[in-house]
Formats: sequence, structure tokens, C-alpha cells
Amino acid sequence: MPTQTHSYAAHAADKPLEHWQFERRDPRPDDVSIEILYCGVCHSDLHFAKNDWGFTEFPIVPGHEIVGRVTAVGAEVKNYAEGDLVGVGCMVDSCRECEACNDGLEQYCLNGFTMTYGSEDRHDATMTQGGYSNFVVVSERFVVKMPDGIDLKSAAPLLCAGITTYSPLKHYGVKAGHKVGVIGMGGLGHMGVKLAQAMGAEVTLFTRSQSKVEEAKSNGADHVVVSTDEDQMAAVAETFDFMLDTVPVAHDLNPYLNCLRYDGTHILVGVMDPIEPPVTGMNLIFKRRVVGGSLIGGMPETQEVLDFCAKNDITCDVEMINIDTINDAFDRMKAGDVRYRFVIDMESLKQKAA
Amino acid sequence: MPTQTHSYAAHAADKPLEHWQFERRDPRPDDVSIEILYCGVCHSDLHFAKNDWGFTEFPIVPGHEIVGRVTAVGAEVKNYAEGDLVGVGCMVDSCRECEACNDGLEQYCLNGFTMTYGSEDRHDATMTQGGYSNFVVVSERFVVKMPDGIDLKSAAPLLCAGITTYSPLKHYGVKAGHKVGVIGMGGLGHMGVKLAQAMGAEVTLFTRSQSKVEEAKSNGADHVVVSTDEDQMAAVAETFDFMLDTVPVAHDLNPYLNCLRYDGTHILVGVMDPIEPPVTGMNLIFKRRVVGGSLIGGMPETQEVLDFCAKNDITCDVEMINIDTINDAFDRMKAGDVRYRFVIDMESLKQKAA
Repeated sequence: MPTQTHSYAAHAADKPLEHWQFERRDPRPDDVSIEILYCGVCHSDLHFAKNDWGFTEFPIVPGHEIVGRVTAVGAEVKNYAEGDLVGVGCMVDSCRECEACNDGLEQYCLNGFTMTYGSEDRHDATMTQGGYSNFVVVSERFVVKMPDGIDLKSAAPLLCAGITTYSPLKHYGVKAGHKVGVIGMGGLGHMGVKLAQAMGAEVTLFTRSQSKVEEAKSNGADHVVVSTDEDQMAAVAETFDFMLDTVPVAHDLNPYLNCLRYDGTHILVGVMDPIEPPVTGMNLIFKRRVVGGSLIGGMPETQEVLDFCAKNDITCDVEMINIDTINDAFDRMKAGDVRYRFVIDMESLKQKAA
Repeated sequence: MPTQTHSYAAHAADKPLEHWQFERRDPRPDDVSIEILYCGVCHSDLHFAKNDWGFTEFPIVPGHEIVGRVTAVGAEVKNYAEGDLVGVGCMVDSCRECEACNDGLEQYCLNGFTMTYGSEDRHDATMTQGGYSNFVVVSERFVVKMPDGIDLKSAAPLLCAGITTYSPLKHYGVKAGHKVGVIGMGGLGHMGVKLAQAMGAEVTLFTRSQSKVEEAKSNGADHVVVSTDEDQMAAVAETFDFMLDTVPVAHDLNPYLNCLRYDGTHILVGVMDPIEPPVTGMNLIFKRRVVGGSLIGGMPETQEVLDFCAKNDITCDVEMINIDTINDAFDRMKAGDVRYRFVIDMESLKQKAA
């Protein structure tokens, strides 16, 4: 029997999120039914709710940084049992048979992955709905275990902000001793600093604002460079092995490319379209530098980042909110007024559900 | 005693190249003195002669695809002897002590490499002069051996066009079975096709012109795609592991990026500044694609490409010219009327020297 689910949904681009009830699908044999405890608030939630990218189907329940407790499992589920603490990130399905899926890179599924919310379900063609909710049903393959001892509240953002920065640092080869620059001090940037440091890198935070220097240092950056200060930029020219660029709006990559050594890598994880002003070809050719992208991470790596963070005592800095303040949180997030991630305590939804 | 050298030099940006005599430096202990037999004509020779990049110091003798015979060696020279057939490419010196030099990547020398022509000599502050000449003196480290049996005339362009395409194919990891696209069918492009094929890749030549399809196939491309044909481009979407982009003028990378699989690599070897229209961030992020540059190759790899070509019976397609037709050759090269490299037979300089 379908489960009645209480959520906060956007019903139109110009409307605030409001309480909405809908029926979750009947669990399938490979499904894990999850009572949601916490859900992080990602900037893309806001983009979806406002239909900034033009493909939102309303009503939509955002939320893809989900931590919860298993309430039931389907007959074919092998790795989870009632009571387990689990997470769900940005994906809830993929074709499961292409080369990318077979490599555990479901985010690059050749047939397109199913987003946690706002995608058409591959089986029943309903729209998937996210974690601003008390309940979610997800196929086992797209569920991860919360490691023992991890702080559940601050772990929620690891499922998007954490994996989005961890995966490229690993993939592009950050190792102990490397010099890594992190551009931007938001939800992704502050995770990038912590993760790169835990990998043994020497980490420099690049910020446009002098006012963020102390904040960056208190967050553990070894060094801070004010990117608008030409002298500071010149002083670090050709010294970095990697740049992790988390800035999600158009900006000039060339001054940062100039900070990379030969064979240096500039990694884009913040979606910016197009890259303007354009990259200078000489900046790539004359030093064999590369500009590469990266999108979240596959399921094995999503488990890996949780385990890595538990082992290295890394958490995301969060501000807990109640779900009925989500619209204010959106406004504050848009204004950059969050250090560094809002997380919704889903206990606050219980009065609605009562 | 300095050697009197006969050359063809540009004396100003608006003047044709003409015969010029100057004194080569006295050989140093690590120097190899070389009688030049053949010299390839690279597009950058034209750029230098016309001062297109704004830093030419006149008079300048172009030419960095030099094949010759050793006439004398300095006391410290270990690997060459009088009579050896040798080559000189785009570099004649570097700091020899930085990390890049120690890695055999002299082209990325942290202190800047010395170009074969148009650079200030590190020791005596004279300007280096290139291979449109009967004689050159080069430090042993920047000399390569011509492998036994290689055709000397058609080997000359391997020292620039060959290494410039070989080095990135190796560095970025082209292996047997990979699908490689080569963009542009000029001096670099036709070498890229041959080299990638010899590495075991399946090679597709991308050209803007239907008229070049047969030419590309007769040059050994497994497939040809006319890049202005949207249907042809759509048919190969997301199928390539690598693109080797040899086009030296601004063009849109996005349609080619769309032809790359996830984790695909777009390699720039033709200097184009800036990259306009700009690259779309999503084209990189959503498939973890990279855009990377590459500049010629280091000295060990320059020897390697010669040996590889000798072993695999690869040559550059050349049209031999006499040096007194160099200005016509420049005009024809500018018009794209060369298949695919002019090579100067330096025997034709002897009448001047007589």
C-alpha cells in the first residue's frame, strides 16, 4: 500500500515552498524504505524550485542530501535491514548495465541517471521527489551506510557537497604533498579545503574578499590568497598542482590557470555556462595544463567519502533549521548568508504529519 | 674561429626572406657542429618572419625542423661523432637544472627554454638563428640521432609536427583500441592520424570540407567526419576517447566536446587565443571531460618519436623545395596549398655559399 508522505514542495517557480502530501510508491523488491531524519539544503534545490534551469516539473520536493533510518526492506535487499542509518544522495537510479554503471560511475550513466528529485522514474514514469520530506523509498544500489560514530546532522551535506569535492580530488590525483588551491568558500569550497587537507595536500583558499581571510584560516586553510589582489596572485604564479574551482557563476579562469605549474589541473565542479571570459589557449598549451570537470560521484565513491570523513573526523559545518523556515533559508542562501550548509531537522515536520 | 654561415633571413616584417651571411659562435665543449641537409618549413616560421606575435627581433633565420650531418664535436660531447646524421627541433637550450628539465620535459623548463631561433642565447646573449641555413651549432643535449634507414627528407618535420602530435597522444594516454578524432588535415593533423594509428587507435579525421574526405582516407584515416554536417556530428556523439585538435585559429570546441565519451580528453596543440566561442562548463562537468594543452615534446621524447616512426615506417608527406623559392612557399603555405610540409633541400644553398 502506498505510503502517505509529508513534504515541502514548490508548486510554481514564483511560489514559496509549502506543505504537500503525496503517496510514495509501493516498495519494490530491491527497495529500502527510509524515514528521513535530516536533509541538507543545496543551492541546486533553490534553482530547481525557482525553475532557473527551465526543466522543473511542478510540484517538486527538493532535497538530495538525505540521512535517515531504514523502516523496511524489500525481499531482494541484501545489505540493509530495519533500523540501519543510511544516506541518499543526488541519484536514485541509473540503467545499471552500461560501461559507466558497471564501473560504479552511475553519475555518467550512458542512458542518463535518475535524479533524486525532478526525474522520471524508470519503472512507473512518476516524478521522483526529494528529501524535504519525512519518507523516501530508494533502490538499495543508491543507498549508502552511515558509518558508525559519524554525526548524522553534519554528514547530510557529504552526500552532495562532500562527494562533489571528494570525487575530483581523488580522480584527478591529489596526493600528499601536492599544493591545492580551492576557489570559493561556500558549501563545496569549505569541504574541498577539509578533504584536500585530509589527503595530505597543502591547501590555499582563494577568495575575492579580504573579509573572508580569517574565516578561511579558521576553517583550516593553510594559506589564503585574495584573488583580487594582483600582487598576491603574482606571488603564487605557477606554484599549484591543482585548483578546485567551486564558483558556480561565470568568472575568468585565466588568472587561476596562471597559478598552476606545468601539468597542473583546474577542476570545475560549479556549473558555469559558458566559461567567460574565455580561456586562453596559450595558458593550456605552454604548460600542458588541463581544465576538467567533475559531477558528484558514483555510488561506491559516495560510500567511500562517508567512510573517509568518519575516519578523518571531517564534518560539514551546518546550521540546523526547521522545515517551516525553508523559504527564509532559501533567501539567506541566495544572499550567501550561511556557514556553510543549512540542514533541515525533519523532526520539525512531525507536527504537520501528526 | 667563428664559422661563416649562409642563411635565408627576414630582415623586417614586410620584407621577403633573403640571403644573409653571419658568423656562428665558436663551438663550446658540449657543442655539436652540424652541416644542415634539410629543413622543414613550419607555419610558425611564417609567423616569426612576419612578426605576427610581436616579439621577433630582426634579422631572423627561421627553421626548427633541421636534419644534418655532424662536422665536429666539442671535447665534452659523448654521444655524437663526425659524420653522424642528426636532427635539431624547436629547442636548443634550457636551464637544465629545474624539475621539468630533470624530467626530460625541457619544453616546460621553469626558467624558459631557448628556442632554436629568435631566443637569446643563455651564454653569450646573441640571438639564436634557425635552420634555413647551411650550418648550425647546438649543445649535445638538444641534438637527436636520426635512426638508421629513416628517410631524411621526410623525417625533418617529425622534429616539430611529429613530436607535437606524438607527445600528447602518449602523455594523455592513447592506447590500442581507443577511438581518436583528429581535427584538421594539415602538417600536424596528417601526422596525428599516422601516429595514432600506429599506436593502435581507430582514427577519425574531422574536416570542415567535403572535398577533403577522399584525401583524408587516402592518408589513412579509418573514418572521416565532415564537421559542418550536423547529422554526421550527431552520429558520432559521445563516442570518442580523445580529440587531437590541430586547428591553429579560433573555433568552437563545444561540438567536438560533445563527440567525447565520459572521461574523454580534448587536446589542443594548435595555438588559438582566446578559445572562442567559449567552452560550455556543462560539456566538461556532466561527462568529466577535460581540455588540455601540449607543447612540442622534451628531448627524450623527440628521440622516441624518431625511433617510433622509423620502426613503424611512418614519414611526413613532404614537398621538396629549393631555398630561393621560400617566399613562394610561405605564400602557398598561407593559402593552405601544401600536402603537408615543405622541406628545403639545403643543397640549393650551396651556390650562394660558393
